[in-house]
Amino acid sequence: MVKEQKTADVSFESLLKIFTIPEGPDSTLTKIDVSLSQNLNEFLREHIVAEEKPLHEIEKDFSSAQIPEQPEFVSDHTEHLLDTLVSHSVHTSAPSFIGHMTSALPYFLMPLSKIMIALNQNLVKIETSKAFTPLERQVLGMLHRLIYGQSDDFYTKWMHSAKHSLGAFCSGGTIANITALWVARNRALKANGAFKGVEKEGLFKAMKHYGYDGLAILVSERGHYSLKKAADVLGLGQDGLVAVKTDANNRIIVDDLKAKMAELEAQNIKPIAVVGVAGTTETGTVDPLPQIAEVCATHDCHFHVDAAWGGATLMSNNHRHLLSGAELADSVTIDAHKQLYIPMGAGMVLFKDPDAMKSIEHHAQYILRKGSKDLGSHTLEGSRSGMAMLVYAAMHIISRPGYELLIDQSIAKARYFADLINQQDDFELVSEPELCLLTYRYLPSDIRLALEKAQGSQKEKLNELINQLTQFIQKRQRETGKSFVSRTRLNPAHWQHFNTIVFRVVLANPLTTNEILSSVLEEQREIALQAPSLMAKIQKTVQKIHNS
Amino acid sequence: MVKEQKTADVSFESLLKIFTIPEGPDSTLTKIDVSLSQNLNEFLREHIVAEEKPLHEIEKDFSSAQIPEQPEFVSDHTEHLLDTLVSHSVHTSAPSFIGHMTSALPYFLMPLSKIMIALNQNLVKIETSKAFTPLERQVLGMLHRLIYGQSDDFYTKWMHSAKHSLGAFCSGGTIANITALWVARNRALKANGAFKGVEKEGLFKAMKHYGYDGLAILVSERGHYSLKKAADVLGLGQDGLVAVKTDANNRIIVDDLKAKMAELEAQNIKPIAVVGVAGTTETGTVDPLPQIAEVCATHDCHFHVDAAWGGATLMSNNHRHLLSGAELADSVTIDAHKQLYIPMGAGMVLFKDPDAMKSIEHHAQYILRKGSKDLGSHTLEGSRSGMAMLVYAAMHIISRPGYELLIDQSIAKARYFADLINQQDDFELVSEPELCLLTYRYLPSDIRLALEKAQGSQKEKLNELINQLTQFIQKRQRETGKSFVSRTRLNPAHWQHFNTIVFRVVLANPLTTNEILSSVLEEQREIALQAPSLMAKIQKTVQKIHNS
Repeated sequence: MVKEQKTADVSFESLLKIFTIPEGPDSTLTKIDVSLSQNLNEFLREHIVAEEKPLHEIEKDFSSAQIPEQPEFVSDHTEHLLDTLVSHSVHTSAPSFIGHMTSALPYFLMPLSKIMIALNQNLVKIETSKAFTPLERQVLGMLHRLIYGQSDDFYTKWMHSAKHSLGAFCSGGTIANITALWVARNRALKANGAFKGVEKEGLFKAMKHYGYDGLAILVSERGHYSLKKAADVLGLGQDGLVAVKTDANNRIIVDDLKAKMAELEAQNIKPIAVVGVAGTTETGTVDPLPQIAEVCATHDCHFHVDAAWGGATLMSNNHRHLLSGAELADSVTIDAHKQLYIPMGAGMVLFKDPDAMKSIEHHAQYILRKGSKDLGSHTLEGSRSGMAMLVYAAMHIISRPGYELLIDQSIAKARYFADLINQQDDFELVSEPELCLLTYRYLPSDIRLALEKAQGSQKEKLNELINQLTQFIQKRQRETGKSFVSRTRLNPAHWQHFNTIVFRVVLANPLTTNEILSSVLEEQREIALQAPSLMAKIQKTVQKIHNS
Repeated sequence: MVKEQKTADVSFESLLKIFTIPEGPDSTLTKIDVSLSQNLNEFLREHIVAEEKPLHEIEKDFSSAQIPEQPEFVSDHTEHLLDTLVSHSVHTSAPSFIGHMTSALPYFLMPLSKIMIALNQNLVKIETSKAFTPLERQVLGMLHRLIYGQSDDFYTKWMHSAKHSLGAFCSGGTIANITALWVARNRALKANGAFKGVEKEGLFKAMKHYGYDGLAILVSERGHYSLKKAADVLGLGQDGLVAVKTDANNRIIVDDLKAKMAELEAQNIKPIAVVGVAGTTETGTVDPLPQIAEVCATHDCHFHVDAAWGGATLMSNNHRHLLSGAELADSVTIDAHKQLYIPMGAGMVLFKDPDAMKSIEHHAQYILRKGSKDLGSHTLEGSRSGMAMLVYAAMHIISRPGYELLIDQSIAKARYFADLINQQDDFELVSEPELCLLTYRYLPSDIRLALEKAQGSQKEKLNELINQLTQFIQKRQRETGKSFVSRTRLNPAHWQHFNTIVFRVVLANPLTTNEILSSVLEEQREIALQAPSLMAKIQKTVQKIHNS
């Protein structure tokens, strides 16, 4: 690592220097920049963990709450970051890390992200973002068109309209979902006669005005936990989030949805929104969107689709039919930092109706004046970065057919892995991949047979032991650091809805090969042998069951 | 700009390439990286606007909602971004752009931000962030200590505790404020007897349980517009945000606060929080925090301090007394992307009580399991980037004494500019700088005298014409592109609370010199001459007043 010449001191002169752009390729900071890039590239290329350090050990490096009284050289601090932070970070882009939705990134985004950082625009208003504002509006327009496919005239009319908004760019899917449900709540409890609307008078007066005893948001049992947060923050309470039953394929049961809607209305509880999930976080399932849309239309209820993870599938003409019905939604959430391969912090919510966001519009004197095109008048967040430019750049450099290939190969890879698991004698595919996500567990055939045969408390006991084993394998594999699958708990119909801990994999990294998938299974098999006493307990229980 | 060799096509092979880390300094992408840096540095160094293009012209470059069907070369697209986006962005770091709170950045953050982008960690859980999680907890601990100054033991005990949280890192001050008020609301309406708490049962049942007729948040007339959003989203309604009168110095009048609290309680409306502003966005004023704390203690009401912009003043031992009383607050918002000179997207909220965030805690099965140290169980947002590392790095490289110097010079510069304005015959200082923000307007002495003398509709008319002039000057100056001041509307006591449009400047850029400040005034004087018909109208009215 290059060492800069200037002293690490706190004179005003040295502070002025750090705000000054270095001149030419020979400046010390430019050299640090180049050397840091090489270091990072090496780290990313090798995909290996230098040393697995337990969290409580890592915490020792981050234990002081004292803000340093002594300045450090940039070069020294960079070394320090490489040693203490980078080497103990997670290789989210490693092809064998298939347990999370955090994407590997196209390399060209590294240089391009400099534009975002260096220009440091604030998208809340045009005064601090200029061309970034129309760019972000265009990105929202592109995603809107991808979902709703309106005519060119529609976008010419609304995309840059000061009084309208096709959606909001935000830090992620949670804020996107909250924004959609905020709009839904405010539209359900809008101004009416002497009542000025929930946004003005609040929820208590709104309920009394409309004479409701409660409000509800309906979503499948597999809905994302962010919806619970939304129900809490918006004042419905977590009890206002009503879970609709799912079928053996983890899809919402439309008849149960209808029954729940009827039940709520009988209790004088107003459903303000139904959320259809297009790619659940745990099983990657897509709800039957057209049927949900029908139910919503019947009940005059906002239909929101949470496609935070699955939405990018619309880029593939070969697979967009899997999300058919999304175009019927009043609002749709898509995270670009998931299957659009953009760095963390790029969520979006799109609204079918360009007038929809009026119910949450905000203005102020020094900012977001009425009639301005300031984006901040329609976002839950205030100051925001120019992250939309990375979505814009990726759309142009990769193009839709490029994304189509990425989506297609992910889905094909998940299908391949599902088949591979099915061919194994000692693994069980727990949920089939609809998109590129599947769940499975290590379950040798003799244990499987015993679990099928067992009854009552014996069945519960064996199931519990298998869960412990799954958990052990997942943890040990993560700690070993060569590969990573995540885990979650499902209640599969074919196992009588027992709590079942499973491995969860998301196959979105184009660098993940079939060989890697085989070796992940091989490693899990080997890890199972590292829990001899747990395996002995399992075998003992299995024997008992076979003998009974 | 270097041109990469490979064709822009959509084969899977070329897509794999874009996810592959380039080898060595001679790779095409490395060359593009270097060449882009040079371009950006040149752009940032020159601080000039190539060409002032009106927004509707810029929009033409961002008019298609069609996602491209053809891929582009990285090099070609980079050129395109430089031409259409970079050259029409706002020079937020130019020393003569003194109209906004968006900071100039220390240059070392450009290379270091690569670590954040390249590693693409997701701070929602340890599985996808590892060492970034303790790092973020440490950053929160540092800011907590800066505000509350607890003992080392306190931080050893709580900073890394799985069951506690000293605050939340978020995308910005708006989310930080919403988080604080969400906690305040949930604690005010907590579980009690058979009632399970507002987070579970919702606002309507909570109101009935506690027997309140309404909820309120109190803040000075100068409070940030984000609080209105917070009142809306949290279900209080914007009417629930009660504006407390301010004195001639734009500070909250404590007697009016007391009167409003009494009034609300007489109406059976529960005040869930009082917000003290430590650096208002429009005038940079700090409310009398110790007195507000006293009122809150008397009424058992959450005391929140919005120090999004002003909070960094605590870094200066010479000026931290200006924020005295912040340590009495239950929660404090600070934006690192303002006076801590971090790129956009770094807000924080800190809570005095490590137990405070329990009222908004969330868990899920596959993530944020109970007992885990996952940060996501205490944030409104879900997936989040590793932005905290830039705060961490800047704290170490600049150090507290370095920040002290930056804060001190900003405040001194604002004082210098205020004196300079007072020395001019044709400018009026409208609000004195307390921190580094002040407001003023162009008001030649003859016009000023006439405005003082005028009565009734004549006074209104002249005031309106002066407002038009201020607005004209601000707009023209912005469009000319050499310098930028923002504008807002105040109601100064010494002008009988007339609507008064003013220039607003924030002097946080260390590169802004005294010469630049003089030239900003000079330019405004010259621009005033470019509105001859408006000036003639003003002169005519002035004459009439003098003659009456």
